[in-house]
This record gives sequence, C-alpha cells and structure tokens, in this order.
Amino acid sequence: MDLGALILAAGEGTRMRSRLPKVLHQLAGKALLGHVIDTARSVNPDEITIVYGHGGELVPTQLSAPDLTWVEQTERLGTGHAVMQALPSLRKVDQVLILYGDVPLISSSTLTGLLSCLRLSNLALLTVDLPDPAGYGRIVRDGMDRIIRIVEQKDASQREQEITEINTGILAVKRERLEKWLARLDNNNAQKEYYLTDIIAMAVEDGVNIQAVHPDSEEEVMGVNDRKQLAYLERYHQRQLAEGLMHNGATLADPSRIDIRGHLTTGQDVFLDCNVIIEGNVSLADGVRVGPNVVLKDCSICEGTEIFANSVLEAAEIGSECRIGPFARIRPESRLADHVHIGNFVELKKSQVADGSKINHLSYVGDSEVGEQVNIGAGTITCNYDGANKHRTVIGDRAFIGSDTQLIAPVIVGEGATIGAGSTISKDAPSEKLTLTRAKQISIDGWQRPVKKPKA
Amino acid sequence: MDLGALILAAGEGTRMRSRLPKVLHQLAGKALLGHVIDTARSVNPDEITIVYGHGGELVPTQLSAPDLTWVEQTERLGTGHAVMQALPSLRKVDQVLILYGDVPLISSSTLTGLLSCLRLSNLALLTVDLPDPAGYGRIVRDGMDRIIRIVEQKDASQREQEITEINTGILAVKRERLEKWLARLDNNNAQKEYYLTDIIAMAVEDGVNIQAVHPDSEEEVMGVNDRKQLAYLERYHQRQLAEGLMHNGATLADPSRIDIRGHLTTGQDVFLDCNVIIEGNVSLADGVRVGPNVVLKDCSICEGTEIFANSVLEAAEIGSECRIGPFARIRPESRLADHVHIGNFVELKKSQVADGSKINHLSYVGDSEVGEQVNIGAGTITCNYDGANKHRTVIGDRAFIGSDTQLIAPVIVGEGATIGAGSTISKDAPSEKLTLTRAKQISIDGWQRPVKKPKA
Amino acid sequence: MDLGALILAAGEGTRMRSRLPKVLHQLAGKALLGHVIDTARSVNPDEITIVYGHGGELVPTQLSAPDLTWVEQTERLGTGHAVMQALPSLRKVDQVLILYGDVPLISSSTLTGLLSCLRLSNLALLTVDLPDPAGYGRIVRDGMDRIIRIVEQKDASQREQEITEINTGILAVKRERLEKWLARLDNNNAQKEYYLTDIIAMAVEDGVNIQAVHPDSEEEVMGVNDRKQLAYLERYHQRQLAEGLMHNGATLADPSRIDIRGHLTTGQDVFLDCNVIIEGNVSLADGVRVGPNVVLKDCSICEGTEIFANSVLEAAEIGSECRIGPFARIRPESRLADHVHIGNFVELKKSQVADGSKINHLSYVGDSEVGEQVNIGAGTITCNYDGANKHRTVIGDRAFIGSDTQLIAPVIVGEGATIGAGSTISKDAPSEKLTLTRAKQISIDGWQRPVKKPKA
Repeated sequence: MDLGALILAAGEGTRMRSRLPKVLHQLAGKALLGHVIDTARSVNPDEITIVYGHGGELVPTQLSAPDLTWVEQTERLGTGHAVMQALPSLRKVDQVLILYGDVPLISSSTLTGLLSCLRLSNLALLTVDLPDPAGYGRIVRDGMDRIIRIVEQKDASQREQEITEINTGILAVKRERLEKWLARLDNNNAQKEYYLTDIIAMAVEDGVNIQAVHPDSEEEVMGVNDRKQLAYLERYHQRQLAEGLMHNGATLADPSRIDIRGHLTTGQDVFLDCNVIIEGNVSLADGVRVGPNVVLKDCSICEGTEIFANSVLEAAEIGSECRIGPFARIRPESRLADHVHIGNFVELKKSQVADGSKINHLSYVGDSEVGEQVNIGAGTITCNYDGANKHRTVIGDRAFIGSDTQLIAPVIVGEGATIGAGSTISKDAPSEKLTLTRAKQISIDGWQRPVKKPKA
Repeated sequence: MDLGALILAAGEGTRMRSRLPKVLHQLAGKALLGHVIDTARSVNPDEITIVYGHGGELVPTQLSAPDLTWVEQTERLGTGHAVMQALPSLRKVDQVLILYGDVPLISSSTLTGLLSCLRLSNLALLTVDLPDPAGYGRIVRDGMDRIIRIVEQKDASQREQEITEINTGILAVKRERLEKWLARLDNNNAQKEYYLTDIIAMAVEDGVNIQAVHPDSEEEVMGVNDRKQLAYLERYHQRQLAEGLMHNGATLADPSRIDIRGHLTTGQDVFLDCNVIIEGNVSLADGVRVGPNVVLKDCSICEGTEIFANSVLEAAEIGSECRIGPFARIRPESRLADHVHIGNFVELKKSQVADGSKINHLSYVGDSEVGEQVNIGAGTITCNYDGANKHRTVIGDRAFIGSDTQLIAPVIVGEGATIGAGSTISKDAPSEKLTLTRAKQISIDGWQRPVKKPKA
Repeated sequence: MDLGALILAAGEGTRMRSRLPKVLHQLAGKALLGHVIDTARSVNPDEITIVYGHGGELVPTQLSAPDLTWVEQTERLGTGHAVMQALPSLRKVDQVLILYGDVPLISSSTLTGLLSCLRLSNLALLTVDLPDPAGYGRIVRDGMDRIIRIVEQKDASQREQEITEINTGILAVKRERLEKWLARLDNNNAQKEYYLTDIIAMAVEDGVNIQAVHPDSEEEVMGVNDRKQLAYLERYHQRQLAEGLMHNGATLADPSRIDIRGHLTTGQDVFLDCNVIIEGNVSLADGVRVGPNVVLKDCSICEGTEIFANSVLEAAEIGSECRIGPFARIRPESRLADHVHIGNFVELKKSQVADGSKINHLSYVGDSEVGEQVNIGAGTITCNYDGANKHRTVIGDRAFIGSDTQLIAPVIVGEGATIGAGSTISKDAPSEKLTLTRAKQISIDGWQRPVKKPKA
C-alpha cells in the first residue's frame, strides 16, 4: 500500500496581522509548514502534496524540495474543496494522510499510530479530549463507543456540548473511499464551503468502522492562528526540547530559559546556563560548559571547552579545553584548535588559531592564520581590508604580538617573532627577532592643560 | 456633572522595608501612584486631588503636574479621615471617584463602568470575587441581591466568611451624599480610626440602591504592600503588555521574558527576541528585529533594521535597513541614517552617521559627524575630550579611516580621504589624499625574550 | 544526649547519565551533598558520618572537612546495610539523625522539629502528604492515628494506595534502639537488600510510640534522581531565595529570572534587574542597582553604586557611588574606591583605582595602581605582560591618559601628567608634563585607492 501525505496550507492567517503567509512564521527557527513537512517525511510517505494559497509563490519557493508537490488553491472553498483539488496530484497512492500546515507539533509517533489503523479500517481520525472543548466539533459516539458523527459547536445540543472529545481534522483514509465521499460533498451551508468533515457522516452511513487515535499531548494538535498561540507553542516546544536535553545527560540551569532553534547534540555532562540560544546545527561534546546569554549558531565544540557569559559564536569549530569569552564574538569560518583562549571584547573572523594560542583582550583578528602558542596582546588589530579587498595575516608559532599592534595585511609574522607594543606592521616581521615601529618618547616642560571654556 | 478624582496615597508601606514612600516604588518604570494618576486622567476628571503623607514632599515633588492638587495628611486617622480632609480641595465637583495610590493597575474601562453607575445611583462600589477572600471585607447582599452591608473579616460569621465577593475600597459617589455621610463617621473602634467603608451602611440606611461593578481581572484591584506583591503585579502587567504587542502583530520569542518600562510602538512583523528591555518611548517600524538581551531606551528605529544580541541603545534615532551589534553601545543624541552598520564593541555617542557608513569593530566615535559611505576601521578612536572640553570630529563622505587611528578633535577628515592604519591625526586630513603618521619599521637582531623571573 | 548525623550518599545515580557521582551535582552552586552537610551542621550534631560509594574517593576529596567522617560502602546491600556499616563510626552519640545526600533541600527547622520528638519517643519519622503518592511507601495508621507500619507501593491494598501520607526515609532515632533493630534486619526479599524501613515494624512491635513530623514544603524531601528533578529543585530553591531577598527589602524585576549560587547579602532598596547571576559571596549595600544580565562573583559593592547591563565582575571590591558598565569586565583582585567610573568594553584586572577616576571606554587596565581623579582615555592598554612576567603600572593622581596609549610596564606616570593620544610609553612619564610619542603627520598627494581585484 502506497501512502500520500496531503498538507493543507492555504489559510490566510488574518489574525497573525502579518505580511508573511501564516505557515511561513517560524517556531523554533523553522517555518510552521516546515515542521509539518518534516514530520510527514518521518512516516515515509511515497508522495507529499501541499496545498498553498495566500502569499503567492513565497511558500513553495521558500520550502521547495524535490519530494514535494505544490498545488495552488486559487479559490478557497473549504477543506473539502482543497482536498478535491489536491488529490489528483497524488498519483499512485492508496492511502492518504491529511495534515495541516499550521498545526506544527504533530508527532511522528502519533501519525504512525493513526496510519496503523488503516489496517483495520478505511478511515482513522485523530481526536483529542480537551478540558474546554468549546468551539470545536465534538465526536459523538453510540452506546457501543462507535463514532457516529461529528457535531459542530453551533449545532450541538446541550448534552453534545458536554462531550470533551473533539475532532482535530487530521485523518488517514483509504484513497478509494475518500474519492467516493469527496464526490458526494456539497456546500449547502451558510459559508457555501465544502467541509472535509462531512465525510465522517458518509463513512458511518457506509458502515465504516471508524478508528480514533489520540495524540500524546494536546499541543500536538493545536493550530496557530495568532501570535499568542505561536508563542504558546514555541514555549511548549522549547520546554519539550529542554526535557530531552536533560534526559540525555545535560544540566540546564533553567529549562524555561533556553531556546533551541535548530538541532543541538550534547555529550555527557554538558552544562547550559540561563538564556542560552542555539541556532542551526550545534554539537557540544562531553563536559562543555556554556555560560549565560551565550548565542551559538552552527558551531561544533569539543570536550571540556568552556564558553563564558555573553559570547556570540557563529559557524565556528572549537577544539577541546578552550576558554572563550566572556564577551567573545566569533564569526563564521573560524577554526580553533585545542587549548585556545579567546578573551573579552575579542572579535575573530574567518581565522584559524592553532593549539594553545591566546587572544585575550580587545582585539580584532580576521582573515588570519595564527600558529601554536602565540600570544596576541590587547588591542591587536589585523588590518585585513584595504577598502576594496581582504588580505590575509599569517602569524607563526610562538610569536608574541605586543599590545595595540596593527598588522597590515597581507603580512607574515615569523615563528618566534616579537612585535613591540603599539607597532604598525606593514612589512613581514622576521622570525625570532623583535620588530617594531616606535617614535621617540618626549616630555614637554611647562605644559598647560586645556581649561574649561565657557559655552558660547 | 463635574467629576473629581481623589487618590489616597498617604500609607506608610512599612512592609516594603524601604526609605522610599511606597507609592513611589516603580512598576513597569513608573511610580505606582503615577499609574493611578494616569488612569484617573483617562476618565477626564475636572479635578484630581491626592492625599499624601509619608516621605514628606518627595511624593508631590516627584509627581508634580499642573492638574494635580496635593493635600498632606499630617495625622493618619483612617481612610474616612483622609477623605474628609481632602474633599474641600475638590472645589466644584458633584461626583467623587475614590482611588488608591498603591493599587496601580486599575483600568480605565473599569472606572468608566463604575462612573456610569452614578447615573442610576448615588453610590457605586467596585467589588470583586476572590477564590480566597480571607482577610477582606465581604459584600453582604439580601435575598434580592442588594448590597446591605460590608462585614470585615474579624466580624464575619462562619456563613459570611464563605462570601467570596469582597470590597475593593474603590468607589464613585455623589459629593452631596458623601459629605453628609462623612459628617456622621465616628472612630469608635479599636484602632480609633475613621473608616470610609462605614458610609456603605449609611447609604443602605438612607435607602440608596448601591450599584456594584466588577473589574476585568483581580489584578486590577490588587494593592502593593510588599515587594513580593510588587513583583507579582510587575510580571502580570508585563504579561499583559506582551499580549498587547502580540495582538498588534509583533512576534515575541518568549512573552515571559520581555520588559516594557514605558511605551513601545511596534509596526508589522516586528520580532523581539528573549530578554529584551524597553525603557521610555521606543518605536520600532515594520520588520524591525531586536536580538536577545538588547536594551532600548527612548529610541526610534526605522523599517527593516536589525539590532543584534547584547546591544544597548539610548536616545538614538536609527534609520532603515541598519545592522547594529552584537555588543553595540549607542549613547544619547546619536542619529543614524539608513544602511548604517555598527558592529561589535563599538561605542557611539552624540554622533551623526550618514547613509551606508560602517563602524564595524572596537571603536569609540563621539561628538562626531560621519558622512556617507565612510568606512571606519577597527580600533578607531575619536579623542573628543582634552580633559576640559569636548570637541567635534567631522569625517567627509567616502573617507576610509584605517584601523587603530586616533582622531584628535577638533579635526576634519576630508571627503574621500584615506587615513593610514595606526595614525594619530591631530591636524585636518585633506580630501582624496592618504594621510598618516608612521614610524619606520625596524627589526632587531639577536633579540632575547624576557625569561620568567623567580618570585621574590 | 549527644547527636550523630548519618548521611547516606552512596547511590549510583544512573538516571543522571553522568560521570560525576550524583551527590556532587550542583544545586545553586553547591553540591547536593554539600547542602545536606550544611543543614546537618545547623542542628549542631556532635558527629557527622557520611556513607559514600560510587565515584571512589572523589566525593570525600571534594567535600573534605575536619568535622566529617567518611565510610565507604563497598557492597551496596540496601539502606539498612549502609546504616549498619556506618553506625560504629559514630563513636559516642546517643541519638542518630538519618539523612540522604540526594535530598538537598531539607531544612534546619524541619530537622529541629524532628529531633525534638526524641524527647518523647525513641523514633521520629519525617513523613509528608503528597497529592500523588504513587510509588512511595505509605504510612499506615490505626484508629488512634498511631503509625503501625509502612507499606510499600507494590504491597499496598487498594485502600492503602489511597493513603497520601508517605515515608521520606529521614528519621531520628535513639542509638540503643537502632542498634537492636538493625541486628534483627534481614534481606529476605526479591532484591536481597536490607531495608532501613523495616525498623518501623520492629518499633511498633516493641511498643514504641512513633512520632511523625512534616516538613514545611514537599520540596524539602524531594530527592534528585535525574536532571529534570535537579532542575525542578534548582528553580524551586531559587524562587525561595528570591522571595527571601524581596522580604528583606530588595526589588527584583523578575523573581523567576535570578540565580543565587552562593550567598547574597542586600542592603535596603537594592534593585536587581532581570537575569542577574550571583556566585560565591556577594554583598550589595543600600541603594545598589544591578542591571540586566550582570554576573557578580565574590564581590562587595558599596552604597549607591550602579552596575549597568551585561557586566561581569569577579572578586572585586567596589566603593560607593560608582558607575560600572554596561559591558564592563572586572577581574579578580580589583579594588575601586568611591565615585569611580568604569565604562563599556573595559577590562580591569588586579588593579586599584582611587576616588573619582574614570576608565570609560575600550581599555585594558591590569596589574595597575590608578590614583585619584585620573582620566584614562579610550583604547588605553597597560602592557603588563612581556611574555614571561607581569609588571605593574602606576598612574598618579590627576593624570590624563590620552586615547589609545600603551603603557609598557613597569612604568610610572607622575601626578598630573598628561599623555598624548596614541603614545607608546616605555619610560616613566614625569609629573605635570605632557609626554608623548608622535610621528609626523604627512599627506600623500595623488593617492590611488586600491581597487577591487577579480577573484582568482
């Protein structure tokens, strides 16, 4: 049996009050629809079709992938209509899983459970018990606990309103039956829309034994209609991610103050302090400690390295037993070997730093290659940009760069070279020698300090 | 009918354990009493009188405004006594609204509802249902649901203690009646105080049909007696403000981690990351993104500008499509045009930066005027202070300032000028030329590095 | 009567998924077992014995103290066996208090209450009512409310499972009785372990009137078995600490966003903004204000000083009315007198700064002694390290250090000296004179700027 996933993602999302189509709003750093696509993929469907509408080509452009088929819904005449339009694009599947682009946290295990019901039945519904079901379509069951219909809030009797099991809209269905039922849908209602829900009544009529499956949590089936709901699901999801990290052996100073926007792998005994933000793909090896307010994006950090408070690292590879920060900024394409120290108010960009080297204070090192056991003094600046081109600085092993030195690239500082403080190095500095630029120090007698002038 | 607002703000606030009078403690960056005054103003009273006491003249001095009359309560003999003393200062009003300086979150809409009851009645009370009413005066009603008295906790029967509707103390009353009732108040009680609450019984006695109004939330009528209550209301209020922002189309990474201490206006699709703090008046135009841990005070930021992590901006005007931070500090009286980049560890103070200019790394630019398309290298410092006076630096369009340059103000760098790295510019630098100070680079043979000395 | 405390701390802690023994994991900056030891000490026992196991000598090594006796449990045969092994090491006590190294938040007042029961009885148990008691041993009482036995979850009848009072394992017992009961313990159970709990049945059998005491909160008796529980207790404990601070007269912007990992003393009207982290011993005098995201470790800060956003201070003594930050980094062994200003992107290390001096921008001052009323310009760097040794810089009162100066230590700048901007000061600078190094400023005609080269 071949499976097709059909994701409805054409909603306008007026209550988001946004120029962006609703399904492109991000949760944990990924578009809502991106979450649904990834979860759909996790159940290995043979085809995935997405119905889009608002926002023109922005949605298919941003989320384009070879395994996705996009169907534009030009008229929005209800969920039933959307499915009717999209079904032909699922070319050869026998089973259809219907998902929603604005219900981002549906889980793979729930979908697997739902799909397994198709072994027993032609139709499986995802339903959920809500403490407050007001507004949702209720699942009406008979005395044998069989689903007999879905009644919408406005049509529900007093007694039906007390039902807490509601329809999520997510369902799995045999294609053959779905096609027959869709053909019978009508739009004889106030909104003049075709409702997918109406197929339930048809299935009951046809004697189908409808199966119902519950998700593990209510949040899995919550939709995002406004930014308050988006923020609620964001925090719920972050809390889940935090619990996963703790389960895997990471200590979090505060599971309510961490944000994972991408994928974080942690070794054993990793410590994450308050307000850490992770973006993209980040891996932290055993014993890594990350200080408060640190932002890590697309970094890999080896064993025992410590990142101190308020540091921002992006696209960096950091070796083991390094000490980074506080207030360090490491920009993309930087690679640090082991035992490297990067201190406060230091910016590193597109540079390699070899084992045991230190750049501890107020420096800018860019487009550079720094050898082993190098000490770069406070206030050192690699002048890598001449206004038009970027040039490289190469610093040999064991070099000692005096404070407040400018290294005007392209320039090479030899192994074991010493640069005197305050020098402007515009030519290569030979190995093992002291190189400097220095004007004579003079003192001027009878110096009168400026005095405060009256304001004009 | 003329309306007078009477705000009781003389309480000592012992449990705050503070030198500051209680009503001057801040919530969301504004004194508790300031909140009450502003909300009182929102219902357009003809006069506002405030009864103050503890803290001497500090309260009227700090919150002084032309529309406020201040009455000092030298003896503190109860709320009834306070109203008696203050009423004469309301010169010509027919209706009196009684508020409390330590109940900061009362809303305008609740007060409007309360005042509208005076059309039907001589007395309207604000009451509220509390899940745990212990300690409060209960509203006793008769079989017809009419208020017949208020019974204090200590005098309440078992049955009365089960009443959950309590008196908030906030009320609206016809002046004529209030004056008569006040005249009949006595202090025959353990505390020897005159209780304003006693007028309720008099009203019932006089056959007044007392109206009761409820606030939208319990927090509106909560008083601040200690710092724990202050923190509770602070967080409640911040949460309300966060929800308002989301409703208006801003995305908040975490609605529990944002602080608005003043007034924030947001355009469409503004994104505020975790732990942003807003102070004073801040406006963020469409598409502005604010990174984590950013502090913005009295700033206006135009479309599409992004402020990266850990930046602190005060009293700045920022154009559109700028890139600021991370770790940028912008101090007052700074104005940035469009497409300006301010990078890490850069301090800007009282400076203008024109379109497309960049100050990307470790620089201090103060009292300066920077032209268009200027590139200011890392480690550049405007030496604006001679120890007595501040001087201005002017940098022409398209100038390129090499790294680690000192610009000794007053100084002018001409259009298109280039300054060599590491220069100390004490005289004006001509347009389109290269200007620099540079000592000759020398290398010393046979250089012996210092060796580690044994500790004395 | 002499008291011995016996702390069981040999558990493996598999669910922590850690290389570190469970009892060494930290809560509020102190090992779990450290909390229990300190609380045990607070009830003034004559001896304290700790049973350790997993992690070899790491636990006794890290927490070693003269008043502690350590007993290694090589075989782990149950709590009863652990007590049997440890009891002989309590040499001369008559009363035994049994605690657990992974139950960190037990309070002194609860233990005092428990111990006071030994005046009336030979055995006092700490029990607690749990809303959800599933999994715990239930306290079974007779019709007279006397404890008659403890029934484990797996052995409990339906009715016993409804009992919400559970055994915490913490108990106080007369030594003489304990010894007798331990002698009668057997390991006839599925796990082949000796259960300390079995002594309850023996006590009942012996006609002992068992006393039961409750802790003030459920969290006091919660154990840490995984990192989720650790995080829960961390946040609970932090919330308690925050409430203590507010009670003592500190204002917290958000009691859910503060971390005290050590001991914090606050004067009156101290303000702590969001996300402050306190480590070690910190004291903040009256009126101190601490900005958001500030980290303070082992600091004492005098009256009226303000620490602005994103500053990191360690082992510093700060005088009164100072202004520190934002983005200030103060490293150990620094002492600031009163009215000192340390500004943004400034690192101070092992330096003294006298009254009224200012280091406002992008500087590194290390191993220095700065006099009174000194002004240190932006970009000043003390070159304190020659690659092998650290040297001191001494700056006299009223000195004015021009921007971007390097002070090559050892060096002395005299009182009232002025250093010209951009100077490299390698020799002492005399008092009251202007000292500088300066190359001539030249401008080069016909300068051609580099042009963008095509990429290779």
